[in-house]
Amino acid sequence: MAKGKLLYAQSGGVTAVINATAAAVIETARSHGVKVYAARNGILGALREDLIDTSRESKSAIAALHHTPGGAFGSCRYKLKPPATDDSEYVRLMEVMKAHDIRWFLYNGGNDSADTALKLSRLGREYGHEIHCIGVPKTVDNDLVVTDCCPGFGSVARYTALSVREASLDVASMSETSTKVFILEVMGRNAGWIAASAGLAGEGADTPPHVILFPERSFEPRAFLAKVKATVERVGYCTVVASEGIRDADGTLLSDTGGRDAFGHAQLGGVAPLLAQMVNEKLGMKVHWAVPDYLQRSARHAASATDLMQAQAVGKAAVEYALDGMNAVMPVILRGRDSPYRWKIAAAPLARIANREKKMPKSFLSRDGFAITAAARRYLAPLIRGEAPAPCGKDGLPLHAVLKRVAVAKKLAPWDGA
Amino acid sequence: MAKGKLLYAQSGGVTAVINATAAAVIETARSHGVKVYAARNGILGALREDLIDTSRESKSAIAALHHTPGGAFGSCRYKLKPPATDDSEYVRLMEVMKAHDIRWFLYNGGNDSADTALKLSRLGREYGHEIHCIGVPKTVDNDLVVTDCCPGFGSVARYTALSVREASLDVASMSETSTKVFILEVMGRNAGWIAASAGLAGEGADTPPHVILFPERSFEPRAFLAKVKATVERVGYCTVVASEGIRDADGTLLSDTGGRDAFGHAQLGGVAPLLAQMVNEKLGMKVHWAVPDYLQRSARHAASATDLMQAQAVGKAAVEYALDGMNAVMPVILRGRDSPYRWKIAAAPLARIANREKKMPKSFLSRDGFAITAAARRYLAPLIRGEAPAPCGKDGLPLHAVLKRVAVAKKLAPWDGA
Repeated sequence: MAKGKLLYAQSGGVTAVINATAAAVIETARSHGVKVYAARNGILGALREDLIDTSRESKSAIAALHHTPGGAFGSCRYKLKPPATDDSEYVRLMEVMKAHDIRWFLYNGGNDSADTALKLSRLGREYGHEIHCIGVPKTVDNDLVVTDCCPGFGSVARYTALSVREASLDVASMSETSTKVFILEVMGRNAGWIAASAGLAGEGADTPPHVILFPERSFEPRAFLAKVKATVERVGYCTVVASEGIRDADGTLLSDTGGRDAFGHAQLGGVAPLLAQMVNEKLGMKVHWAVPDYLQRSARHAASATDLMQAQAVGKAAVEYALDGMNAVMPVILRGRDSPYRWKIAAAPLARIANREKKMPKSFLSRDGFAITAAARRYLAPLIRGEAPAPCGKDGLPLHAVLKRVAVAKKLAPWDGA
Repeated sequence: MAKGKLLYAQSGGVTAVINATAAAVIETARSHGVKVYAARNGILGALREDLIDTSRESKSAIAALHHTPGGAFGSCRYKLKPPATDDSEYVRLMEVMKAHDIRWFLYNGGNDSADTALKLSRLGREYGHEIHCIGVPKTVDNDLVVTDCCPGFGSVARYTALSVREASLDVASMSETSTKVFILEVMGRNAGWIAASAGLAGEGADTPPHVILFPERSFEPRAFLAKVKATVERVGYCTVVASEGIRDADGTLLSDTGGRDAFGHAQLGGVAPLLAQMVNEKLGMKVHWAVPDYLQRSARHAASATDLMQAQAVGKAAVEYALDGMNAVMPVILRGRDSPYRWKIAAAPLARIANREKKMPKSFLSRDGFAITAAARRYLAPLIRGEAPAPCGKDGLPLHAVLKRVAVAKKLAPWDGA
């Protein structure tokens, strides 16, 4: 074994393929003779010195992570205190890294996590313990900058397009006497990437989805209802895909419940029933609605093979960058061509990524704001390609990794924080 | 071509595999040289003389129906007037059958449709046109009597168990700082078969789903909240599966919106957000909820191979029974053994099936009413086995049948009914 250990942590909302990144990290590190610790429940495990020794997991258990959704080592929503005002948490992290001779830290998350990894990367020398910090991209929201797309997004995009296609066949077949309007609510707090991916289900005004509601456009009830009505009159039914983050002209979230998560974001959910009520009341049509919620981001059984490969590639590259001595970078996906699709991995500075959010280009939304453009199709289409289902067991259900999660013996006093 | 035609119609809520039954019907009839007409939008098409000539569809288009969800010829919710008080609709149906020399009528639906097929079967001689009426079982609700299970149910059961398993991994990985309780609402108006199938996701009190709410048990908020609280304290999180049809001690539907469908059934949906609010208010825990709605019954991509085979088998048998001169029967599924699972098709009189509803045996529910028993597992387990995904196209999405749906020339005056 090489001197020093690699610490891997998962952060924020998990995805169908984040464990494939974890598997690639562990397998690549093992091939270099480097021991990997995983923080239990993300950065909280690092603060608490609650570390899992992944070298105690069998080769087959790690391999099974490639087809296991969720976060196998636990993730968390926890925002570190800004070191400029209170550096106690960053100091603690450095103490834990030092105590366990952790030389490489891989933080698998979104733009919040990139910021944390960046701040940590600057502290090594100050605390007398050199550490190489690598951000590893992951988010179904597809809202990281620099990278062409984010691992996790392609699979939720495929699930969404596939669900729209399947459910619309159901609605179409019964629309004469039953449901006329079907509303599918999808994730997407500020950027409508997932809603846009629904557009891949079909092309043309008569093909579902007929209406997509993006957070990028303010929601205008009259235009929406007119579009739904016209679609039902012309096609016989109407499939609507609504982003959870749609806002009215004042910028107020339609679904704002007043609840806030650990990062201060409004806790969303429930736009679909609101829209359903509106359609039913104003147009007098029978409406059904669906909110897949976590089903969409954990649907490993319907994952995109492209997304899976990219999730694995960023994990492998992150280890290689770390062992090569790079610091404060993230392996990002660069697109060569749309068709045939070509991509490669490259290192990008975390400073360019941390705390920024990529919105959809305006050129991706149709003029009326209810559909995607050809440019959006060119971008999105390759990301959902290929099937990569998990193997199934005798019970007919997908097989998932079963880990031992053996704790590393603690060396420090308990952390007195959260 | 043989003298006489076979008319096939789909009825009521569609499923992931009802088109596989349709494909088997058409393929079997073709192999016997019998032409198949399909009623457009179910029995309404028969009343309107709006018939589709399936002989105009290519072999490959019919083959593609085996992996196309929804109802390819259209279905409807339409209850015929009882012939005892107003026989105009049944008279019209006989006129259409006579005009098009329809000798065999296959009605693919649930217990309402079995009743219609039964009534029609008795009218042939009276109207001077002998007709053989066969009911073909189909319903995700699994509530037909006599048959061991209903085509369509196994696939929604597999989707439900699979979704519980996947989404629970997501919830488990983030439960320390985020969602503690996840509530999945599933279909099932009066019988909790779909909710029960969620139980196949795992076994034991600590394995999801931790709480199942069945329509067979009256909902007791205190017992429910206590169970959720204890589960979160013990396991760290709690996955709840709730049937849309759960009722309080007075028998009132939790989700009753006051809306009624064409059959006079209450239009349901929305139990999950009600339960979520209750858990959040009373236990102060972060809750997420999902309502897959039509996604669950159209999820052909996650269909059970067993269910698919049974859907095909009842279609084939229905044609054979009809051509053999049988009348007023339904091909039903009889179970030989649980393990290894053995089943066969047999003919059962429609009179034993029409308008009855199979509830879950009491022995399938655990004593506290929140879980399934070993007996339920023995019954349910074989039904979700095997994968049978649709082939995917270059776009990465499932391929579905594209039909021409060529109308048969009308011979009668327009129907003056609905």
